Amino acid sequence: MIPPDYFPIEPWQIREPRLDLDLLGQTEALFTLSNGHIGLRGNLDEGEPYGLPGTYLNSFYEVRPLPYAEAGYGYPQAGQTVVDVTNGKIIRLTVDDEPLDVRYGELVDHERILDMRAGTLTRRLHWCSPAGKQVKVHSTRLVSLAQRGVAAIEYVVEAVDEFVRVTVQSELVANEDQPPTSGDPRVAAILENPLEAVERERTESGAVLVHRTRASELMMAAAMHHEIEVPGRVQVNTMAIPDVAATTVVCGLRAGQKLRIVKYLAYGWSSERSRPALRDQAIAALTGARYSGWQGLLDAQRTYLDEFWDGADVEVDGDPDCQQAVRFALFHLLQASARAERRAIPSKGLTGTGYDGHTFWDTETFILPVLTYTAPHAAADALRWRATTLDLARERAAELGLAGAAFPWRTIRGQECSGYWPAGTAAWHINADIAAAFEQHRVVTGDGSLEAECGLAVLVETARLWRSLGHHDRHGVWHLSGVTGPDEYTAIVRDNVFTNLMAAHNLRTAAEACARHPDAAHELGVTTEEMAGWRDAADAAHIPYDEELGVHPQCEGFTSAAEWDFDARTTYPLLLHEPYVRLYPAQVVKQADVLLAMHWRSHAFTPEQKARNVDYYERRTVRDSSLSACTQAVLCAEVGHLELAHDYTYETAFVDLRDLHDNSREGLHLAALAGTWIALVAGFGGLRDDSGVLSLNPALPEGISRLRFRLRWQGARVTVSATDTEVTYTLRDGPESRLTIKHAGEELELNTQSPTTVPARRREPLLATPTQPPGREPNHRREVAR
Amino acid sequence: MIPPDYFPIEPWQIREPRLDLDLLGQTEALFTLSNGHIGLRGNLDEGEPYGLPGTYLNSFYEVRPLPYAEAGYGYPQAGQTVVDVTNGKIIRLTVDDEPLDVRYGELVDHERILDMRAGTLTRRLHWCSPAGKQVKVHSTRLVSLAQRGVAAIEYVVEAVDEFVRVTVQSELVANEDQPPTSGDPRVAAILENPLEAVERERTESGAVLVHRTRASELMMAAAMHHEIEVPGRVQVNTMAIPDVAATTVVCGLRAGQKLRIVKYLAYGWSSERSRPALRDQAIAALTGARYSGWQGLLDAQRTYLDEFWDGADVEVDGDPDCQQAVRFALFHLLQASARAERRAIPSKGLTGTGYDGHTFWDTETFILPVLTYTAPHAAADALRWRATTLDLARERAAELGLAGAAFPWRTIRGQECSGYWPAGTAAWHINADIAAAFEQHRVVTGDGSLEAECGLAVLVETARLWRSLGHHDRHGVWHLSGVTGPDEYTAIVRDNVFTNLMAAHNLRTAAEACARHPDAAHELGVTTEEMAGWRDAADAAHIPYDEELGVHPQCEGFTSAAEWDFDARTTYPLLLHEPYVRLYPAQVVKQADVLLAMHWRSHAFTPEQKARNVDYYERRTVRDSSLSACTQAVLCAEVGHLELAHDYTYETAFVDLRDLHDNSREGLHLAALAGTWIALVAGFGGLRDDSGVLSLNPALPEGISRLRFRLRWQGARVTVSATDTEVTYTLRDGPESRLTIKHAGEELELNTQSPTTVPARRREPLLATPTQPPGREPNHRREVAR
Repeated sequence: MIPPDYFPIEPWQIREPRLDLDLLGQTEALFTLSNGHIGLRGNLDEGEPYGLPGTYLNSFYEVRPLPYAEAGYGYPQAGQTVVDVTNGKIIRLTVDDEPLDVRYGELVDHERILDMRAGTLTRRLHWCSPAGKQVKVHSTRLVSLAQRGVAAIEYVVEAVDEFVRVTVQSELVANEDQPPTSGDPRVAAILENPLEAVERERTESGAVLVHRTRASELMMAAAMHHEIEVPGRVQVNTMAIPDVAATTVVCGLRAGQKLRIVKYLAYGWSSERSRPALRDQAIAALTGARYSGWQGLLDAQRTYLDEFWDGADVEVDGDPDCQQAVRFALFHLLQASARAERRAIPSKGLTGTGYDGHTFWDTETFILPVLTYTAPHAAADALRWRATTLDLARERAAELGLAGAAFPWRTIRGQECSGYWPAGTAAWHINADIAAAFEQHRVVTGDGSLEAECGLAVLVETARLWRSLGHHDRHGVWHLSGVTGPDEYTAIVRDNVFTNLMAAHNLRTAAEACARHPDAAHELGVTTEEMAGWRDAADAAHIPYDEELGVHPQCEGFTSAAEWDFDARTTYPLLLHEPYVRLYPAQVVKQADVLLAMHWRSHAFTPEQKARNVDYYERRTVRDSSLSACTQAVLCAEVGHLELAHDYTYETAFVDLRDLHDNSREGLHLAALAGTWIALVAGFGGLRDDSGVLSLNPALPEGISRLRFRLRWQGARVTVSATDTEVTYTLRDGPESRLTIKHAGEELELNTQSPTTVPARRREPLLATPTQPPGREPNHRREVAR
Repeated sequence: MIPPDYFPIEPWQIREPRLDLDLLGQTEALFTLSNGHIGLRGNLDEGEPYGLPGTYLNSFYEVRPLPYAEAGYGYPQAGQTVVDVTNGKIIRLTVDDEPLDVRYGELVDHERILDMRAGTLTRRLHWCSPAGKQVKVHSTRLVSLAQRGVAAIEYVVEAVDEFVRVTVQSELVANEDQPPTSGDPRVAAILENPLEAVERERTESGAVLVHRTRASELMMAAAMHHEIEVPGRVQVNTMAIPDVAATTVVCGLRAGQKLRIVKYLAYGWSSERSRPALRDQAIAALTGARYSGWQGLLDAQRTYLDEFWDGADVEVDGDPDCQQAVRFALFHLLQASARAERRAIPSKGLTGTGYDGHTFWDTETFILPVLTYTAPHAAADALRWRATTLDLARERAAELGLAGAAFPWRTIRGQECSGYWPAGTAAWHINADIAAAFEQHRVVTGDGSLEAECGLAVLVETARLWRSLGHHDRHGVWHLSGVTGPDEYTAIVRDNVFTNLMAAHNLRTAAEACARHPDAAHELGVTTEEMAGWRDAADAAHIPYDEELGVHPQCEGFTSAAEWDFDARTTYPLLLHEPYVRLYPAQVVKQADVLLAMHWRSHAFTPEQKARNVDYYERRTVRDSSLSACTQAVLCAEVGHLELAHDYTYETAFVDLRDLHDNSREGLHLAALAGTWIALVAGFGGLRDDSGVLSLNPALPEGISRLRFRLRWQGARVTVSATDTEVTYTLRDGPESRLTIKHAGEELELNTQSPTTVPARRREPLLATPTQPPGREPNHRREVAR
């Protein structure tokens, strides 16, 4: 846990007024700068102490064997693990004879600020060395959103009250030492010395290091160049050995004098390009950065962010904690995706090595729905990445004896890397989640070009997968057996409601897309018979319903399964204290499952069913996954438990700012951060689009006086501003001057001339506010906030 | 496959008239000599060539880590693997300058015989060295059934036609080289150099080597002594280095002269005793063997076997193949169990390293039922071993959050070693199988002392396990969810018929046993309320039944699951070519499951249900496990498909003699061998005892003219002799002069005065003979036999 008062509540920045070394791992993750291509954890300039040193390049990984005590057919033999690449952040400072180290001497002052409009991490420190010499350091770091391969650091040292000799060593370091791993199976396997030196070059004030991974045979280049300003004499030279290049700057500073260094960094990597090509790529990027100059990079960064916030900002009046958190969430979502450009968005972005740097269904189910409304080009790029892995997914399906394509449960490059098939391969829903993300992108952007470009093939092959996975029983009902839904505490079941609804959606969407693109469909071998088979299976899909209880069993038989012993067995997370063999057959839910179905396939449930299902599953959901609270917020809001929804909003919003899952040091929970937007916009804003129409229905909890958010819908920008009593919709621009949406279920026409204000619809709960399993009541927002 | 004509059909021996080096691995397993404590694979005297060198001591194992690509709570971290211990079988012969090696020179003659009445393996060979020197060698090997720690070899060399100088090196060799392992996951992990030298001692004509395993810290001693007879001068000396001791005998032989060596071997091991104590134990055993002398050992061996065959023999007139096979099966069952003495009976006995040397449910479900009727003291010892592991099973249950005791799915010493929980931990039925074996032993022997000694605690703790695993639904029906039954192609299911029936039997048996032993039950904390809870759950246990089809679904929903695509996907065994994720949800059955339930809980099914279930499951059972054919034989016989039953009898009888599963080289399939007896006696003999009465109902297939078998029942010996038309029961002796049995469902009183002959009841099939999945028709017996 990070204490609630650790970061002051400020609307546009995360400011750490003092340094707590016990929280270093967490703050490194929170202060990560990234553009989706390069990720620099917020490690201290001088490299140590650290929680976890981290410099990542999207999709740059090493492979490692996946061991099994008892092997089985089709188990993946090789895993992929994100690699901590050459660290260019390091700037060591020696003051007279003492290296600056916050653990020694006296740290008079230390402040770090993540500025979400500037896109920078700044640090100010005032240090008194053990020998009594004082310096102030002010560093500003950025990873350029405008120039994909570029990062830069401005580093300023100032002598305070007397002359000091300062030595600055600015480095590129490969194969950094890594801390020992924890026993938690979810923490990434750390690889030692993953990089093999290939080439090094140096100039007086810079260097290039080229390295290669041993098994995956990926090559990367890191380059640095320094601009140095200082009054008086300065000596600069650069050395390079295989794993280190260091530019050393030595000078003397009188009181008040400053040494200013701008360090430009450039990265490039490739699985195919040659060593010279790669080196030149890094040098070209470096040259581009120098051409822009430090101020140019800063300006471009702010311009990029201004444009983003203009279309994405969410304002939460009356709730400054939540205000800060949702901007933090959106900022990191942008950082993870902005320049990923046909690479995966890992579940932890480029903020740490958690989950081995893999991408899961998190991307399509939680991250892309937010990006689709706020940064649709980034969502499109992520979907394009999925499409590039279609051939691998086809091979995987064939290996498993299935038709179509089976996308991996977890991967970096596209190969299945899941070592536990009941919660990996059997979680087939990821295929429908991907298909749904393509369809949502088409509906929300109103742009069919992505479907024509690559989405159609994904829809067709996933539909084929479902058709070969499912079967009709002797009464013509279509079933999906042996599947694992979102709730990983109940696996290998029959007719998971979420999976069946999503598969049916996948099948119907594929048929509709083929009808839109008959020629392309024909090229994919789709016949009208095949399309009819898809529609037929979708229509016949079994959605279990327990008539006695009036709720949807999460899967066949769920509501008559044994109840979990919540009197005795409540050490969370349960997966670390209870065996699957007992979790699976019990009515204990790791994460929203039926509730997620009710969010994404909202129209498939009546309001009364929603109310009863929320009541039933709230009592059995332990939220051992960070992918749960946001969905619980959305559904609790929908059925009228607005205060409970507000608490869940805090759980997802502060997952990392308060380290609620005690593992933020390994990386941020991007899907849960996306959940902040989802909780606010889909929960309190009532956003739904599963009927193809932009539908809103705002209703606020007591703690939020006004909620204002911006959306992009089919080329238009819409602002929604809601209070407890009324809602104002503004159509800011758009391809046409009018737009028909739904407000509280009724059609409403907006126009670009003037905002439209309507009364808010109150949500009256059908049932009393439900309770949760003991120990799993949501942190009331007052405990998370201050 | 071993060709059908490889071993001539002879009633009491397995004779190999010529040596086929490609079948060496298989014949080594088939020719294993063992007494349940020591196992010597039938390796050639001179040590090589070999398929797999093997010398085993029951429960002498090494531990190794069990790796997981993704770990989970409660996964066993350490595995146990049988170790190839110090090899005392090796006797190398050098003829002038040439070492005898069957791959060089000319093998004029080579014959090996496993004599099932003598309990010996003999070998005769006539070899002409590359230099043209001829010798005849005649060796006889035994592992003493009378003296547990003793083995012995008589080795005779004869010069044929001219003088030869012969050098015999008789050795103890630790850490033998092992062949590379295959890619089959079922083949044991071979450990390299598992033994650490602790001590060595030598005399002129013998030596002792003491070794220790590194991780499991078990210590073993192997000792040898030689008696040498030869005309003329002979030189004998012995050397010992850490991993080898060798006694060398050099002499000259004129044509017709013989050198005769008797090598006495003794083994001992312990996890606790000191090095001197262990060395003395081996030397004491060796001294005992020398005191008996070679002829004394031979005589005692034959006496032991005469007694066994008198109570256990099965005669199969008209079917000499089957006759030989059932004796081979019984011989190996005895070898695996005779002197195991409170150690486990591994699924492959001490014949190879397959399955890591582990014991599974095979023992209680297939092996003990045979031993209980033929060698009840051996069955009792195996059950006593289980009882010694009760505390470990209690710990395992507690680790998993369950009451009572959870016995391991696979183990050597008692700790769970299964690295795949869906087919390990979830196969809870092993606990009911163990309980049923205790109960069957009590019923069949009529002796309640084992129950009082240790069985009661096992029954109570397994009943408690079931009570904590199961639950009553809101209608009061008792369910077992998340379980895996015998069929490993359908796992983690609800209400597996076999498991539920066996669990109910376990619960009722425990309640009855507690009523018989109220004081002991009280000490175990059993109350009348707890007993009532057991009976209640047993009575309320759900046994799914498909009214539409008139068959029992193997588990809830099975009969409406997808059918396997038998047109396309039939590369057997399926587990090596198809993923679990597709096998589990399909109607494809690895091995008898409902059929096994109909065998062991026969009275729970009507004759019509049995006929329909056989018909249904025959069409869906692929028999990828060797534990299936015997049960299919029993049930096919019961419902009147006698010829099909005869084919299945051959499949189980010849599993190793023909190497039908292509893995006999790694060890014999003891449970399938036991299945030979089960198929004949329970199948064609109609033996059942699940109503507590000895019930028989013989009916023969065309190929068997008379079936005669001997049983022990409650202290009496009974012989059953059946032809197609009549059955003669002979009560040979017994505690009383009369015994009431059931013949074809009717009570029949036997007496010790004279045999009782009654007409045989013909079995008319209700349905036509069913077909099997393509490619899985049983080998018709004519293809297996000659």
